[in-house]
Amino acid sequence: MRKMMASNIQELDTPTLLVDYKKLTKNIGEMSSFAREQGIALRPHIKTHKSIHIAKMQVEHGAVGITVAKVDEALVMASGGIKDILIAYPIASPQKIKRIVQLLQENINVKLAVDSVEQLKYLQKELEETPFTLEVWIKVNSGLNRCGVEPGKDAVKLAQAILFLSKLKLGGIFTHAGHSYGATSYYKIEQIGAQEANAVIESANACEAAGIPISVRSVGSTPTYRIAGKVKGITEIRPGNAAFFDSIQVGLGVAKEEDCALTVLASVVSKYGEERIVFDTGSKALNLDKGAHGNSTVNGFGTVVGHEEITIERLSEEHGVGTINGHTNLQMNDKVQIIPNHACTVANLFDEYVVHDDGKVINRWKVDARGMNK
Amino acid sequence: MRKMMASNIQELDTPTLLVDYKKLTKNIGEMSSFAREQGIALRPHIKTHKSIHIAKMQVEHGAVGITVAKVDEALVMASGGIKDILIAYPIASPQKIKRIVQLLQENINVKLAVDSVEQLKYLQKELEETPFTLEVWIKVNSGLNRCGVEPGKDAVKLAQAILFLSKLKLGGIFTHAGHSYGATSYYKIEQIGAQEANAVIESANACEAAGIPISVRSVGSTPTYRIAGKVKGITEIRPGNAAFFDSIQVGLGVAKEEDCALTVLASVVSKYGEERIVFDTGSKALNLDKGAHGNSTVNGFGTVVGHEEITIERLSEEHGVGTINGHTNLQMNDKVQIIPNHACTVANLFDEYVVHDDGKVINRWKVDARGMNK
Repeated sequence: MRKMMASNIQELDTPTLLVDYKKLTKNIGEMSSFAREQGIALRPHIKTHKSIHIAKMQVEHGAVGITVAKVDEALVMASGGIKDILIAYPIASPQKIKRIVQLLQENINVKLAVDSVEQLKYLQKELEETPFTLEVWIKVNSGLNRCGVEPGKDAVKLAQAILFLSKLKLGGIFTHAGHSYGATSYYKIEQIGAQEANAVIESANACEAAGIPISVRSVGSTPTYRIAGKVKGITEIRPGNAAFFDSIQVGLGVAKEEDCALTVLASVVSKYGEERIVFDTGSKALNLDKGAHGNSTVNGFGTVVGHEEITIERLSEEHGVGTINGHTNLQMNDKVQIIPNHACTVANLFDEYVVHDDGKVINRWKVDARGMNK
Repeated sequence: MRKMMASNIQELDTPTLLVDYKKLTKNIGEMSSFAREQGIALRPHIKTHKSIHIAKMQVEHGAVGITVAKVDEALVMASGGIKDILIAYPIASPQKIKRIVQLLQENINVKLAVDSVEQLKYLQKELEETPFTLEVWIKVNSGLNRCGVEPGKDAVKLAQAILFLSKLKLGGIFTHAGHSYGATSYYKIEQIGAQEANAVIESANACEAAGIPISVRSVGSTPTYRIAGKVKGITEIRPGNAAFFDSIQVGLGVAKEEDCALTVLASVVSKYGEERIVFDTGSKALNLDKGAHGNSTVNGFGTVVGHEEITIERLSEEHGVGTINGHTNLQMNDKVQIIPNHACTVANLFDEYVVHDDGKVINRWKVDARGMNK
């Protein structure tokens, strides 16, 4: 591969989105190894990378399928050859359901999140116009307070409602502990991971006590999957960000800086005195994320690799304004790699990944589902 | 036009980026009228809309040319037929200068921001390889403390340095008072606008006292252009956001909600009890901007038109979580228009504008320079 495109990342124009091939492969491998050791399934969330190539790497490493949030993402991934897709989003819109039916027509093993009786009615009605039944998974709320039914008897009620509907079949119960991103210590993440697993197991057990078997019990955000995935009775994990990691994961204590596979290559636009340095990466390249769901463990808008003396204090659209603490050897036109705070939203701003190995450009991959937000 | 695509916006899938044609045309007209009344030039910043079609509307309404931040944006706009372009960004990278030379080769009347002697050296060196000279405009810092030389004698020093360089010619002095976005009252915006104009005029006068004529004196962010543009001696304004306006401009008192031409069409995903409502527009559709450069006059992550009872409290990537204050008549699958906090960064997340007139879809325009961030 190196022979094909032998340029060094330092020769690239900026801003450019870089993926470190070795780190990506290692991160993907570690998710897979964990799942294999626990004897559970891995269904990574591809909203992080939105790349068919990376999704296929994950399947080659043993993932049973993928998780997506958007129907557009599912269609893109199906077109790339991914056959088993959970849409982890409670969709009730007839327009969107018709597009899910497209996936069924293409023999994609698609499953959809459900969390209300009203949504079930829309699904049943649209599917009655088709020859298909749709597998649904009940989403329970494990503390994020966003979507999902409350665990336990509310989950049983929804499961019973599904049994009465000819076009739906119940496949599993799942949750997303996104509030782990707001944790202020790793101890707190451990607590949230335990609660996350418990919300699913409690709901599944209550369903089984009511005579409804639940084969899939799925959990696992990037901060919690190694905790929740170890709880007995859990059958699947769905980490997304762990393919790349980012400054928020480092802040949470979930990853180390050297694990982060995604960086934005930036140039120094200018230095103003000894205190201020400006990069060509503003909010349109790094985003304004300081931590999802309340996290504030990160310092500034990204980590300038190898330059601890710099904090990116302010982002306007096209300028990243850094303060220099002490002295920096950086000069006008120098290039740096910035680990973004939130890899998922940053990947969504770029059209392609430039893939490198120790700084040598070895490939370019499209961000296939970028902007596919319907 | 209506006959061509007669669907109503309520029939569109979501999230979709909408532009109200009448409001856009009115906003563009008002910028032009102001400039005409003051007898000054208008050079709108197209980073807001990134659309060739809208840039051309602005030129048809009397703009002398456009402002861009990125070389990519300049190339896209030039390919669309725009002939007069200010790159309001201090570029020193040889790679980027070579791409500016491309514009000179295409007979584009391109001008570049400069703010340091070091940058001048890079420009001179690269241009020496070509038959071209490049017009440069000195950027002065009027309080944003991002880029720009200090007004007055530092501007004169830079102007004198330009005189010595065979491949550069000095065309003007300009500034951007982006710190007006941090103003807590309209009175404060008036003060900043006056300082903005003064920073340019003081610098231009100092240059002229040193025997260097300055023909263009350019100012004017969206919050300040009607203030700074009235100051005697100013010859040009460069508002960008005023084509669309957004919730931050409303918060600043610069626009009214009914002036906002850009909205994101969203669907209600679900209602959870009487307090929580979820839309299918998270940070990948609305962005996390709460106000650039320190502003905090906005409430939540966008304004749900006609639904004051709802505050979008939290955004995750694909979910906008609203709280309901009292009662709402909104139900699952209902569609609403959300005025984003920051129109410029939201337009950058979508591939196209759906243009409507009173809710009837009349056109679709590409966001031509979306993601063109180099």
